[in-house]
Amino acid sequence: MAAEKTLQDAFYEGLKDIYFAERTSVRALKKAAKAAKSEELRQALEQHGEESSQQVERLQQVFEIFGKAARGKTCEAIQGLMAELEEHIEDFGDSDAADAVLISGAQAMEHYEIARYGTLRSWAEQLGLDDAAKLLAQTLEEEKKTDDLLTELAQNSANQNAA
Amino acid sequence: MAAEKTLQDAFYEGLKDIYFAERTSVRALKKAAKAAKSEELRQALEQHGEESSQQVERLQQVFEIFGKAARGKTCEAIQGLMAELEEHIEDFGDSDAADAVLISGAQAMEHYEIARYGTLRSWAEQLGLDDAAKLLAQTLEEEKKTDDLLTELAQNSANQNAA
Repeated sequence: MAAEKTLQDAFYEGLKDIYFAERTSVRALKKAAKAAKSEELRQALEQHGEESSQQVERLQQVFEIFGKAARGKTCEAIQGLMAELEEHIEDFGDSDAADAVLISGAQAMEHYEIARYGTLRSWAEQLGLDDAAKLLAQTLEEEKKTDDLLTELAQNSANQNAA
Repeated sequence: MAAEKTLQDAFYEGLKDIYFAERTSVRALKKAAKAAKSEELRQALEQHGEESSQQVERLQQVFEIFGKAARGKTCEAIQGLMAELEEHIEDFGDSDAADAVLISGAQAMEHYEIARYGTLRSWAEQLGLDDAAKLLAQTLEEEKKTDDLLTELAQNSANQNAA
């Protein structure tokens, strides 16, 4: 019989999931930035793409603190969001609604990450991995700020341009 | 050549997506409630399951306001989260980490919905669909409250029980 699973196991599973998701989001942000109509949105997506690359490195540090090799595990949810983003670029990319739709896709990814980093930070604290918790909290704050910025861009310009 | 897509099209696509996702989450919450170890978590998940059924009805009202028949479109992201939840119940259901893992899965679904309802409310406002915007805002608030409640349950008991 297999040993009973622990919070350590859950933490490791979660790390592998977000490691896959974060690397996928780096690619997604590049695609979305290329498809953006407004310069403001393009810049915001590019900047968060670079930030996401740093977040990937931060995850590698968390794996190291946890004592495991960094590796990803396929995350179907983020793959679904990526597929939707590609479909939306195809369908809406030439339309006035392009930026509004790109922001929607990017925010769905941000919220996926906000949920996961929130859980992982709280589990890291519980497991006494204080340095890991700090790194995860740092990324969590960046994701929330990006989400707020995208809301602002949607409400101040993209949605009006689309209507 | 097909007519250029509009924000109305994006709104309709988004409605179909969240209609599918919300109905999936009703099923997910039932499964999670059944697997919960603590009475407190079981109750919270059951109550939000009932709330989600009302949210499905609210979406039907939004479709009606928009003048389209209510129908869903497969949402791969929520399907991925559902598959993960089932896998986690299988792997962690008998362990002390069960509730912590269930909360993590439920929060990922909440955040998916928070992202989508946030976008749809803002698009409804832009499109002058004020009554629809109000209904979507009402659901959005419920999702945020559920997410906060789940964070509380995780930090006050589930994570400690798991460690």
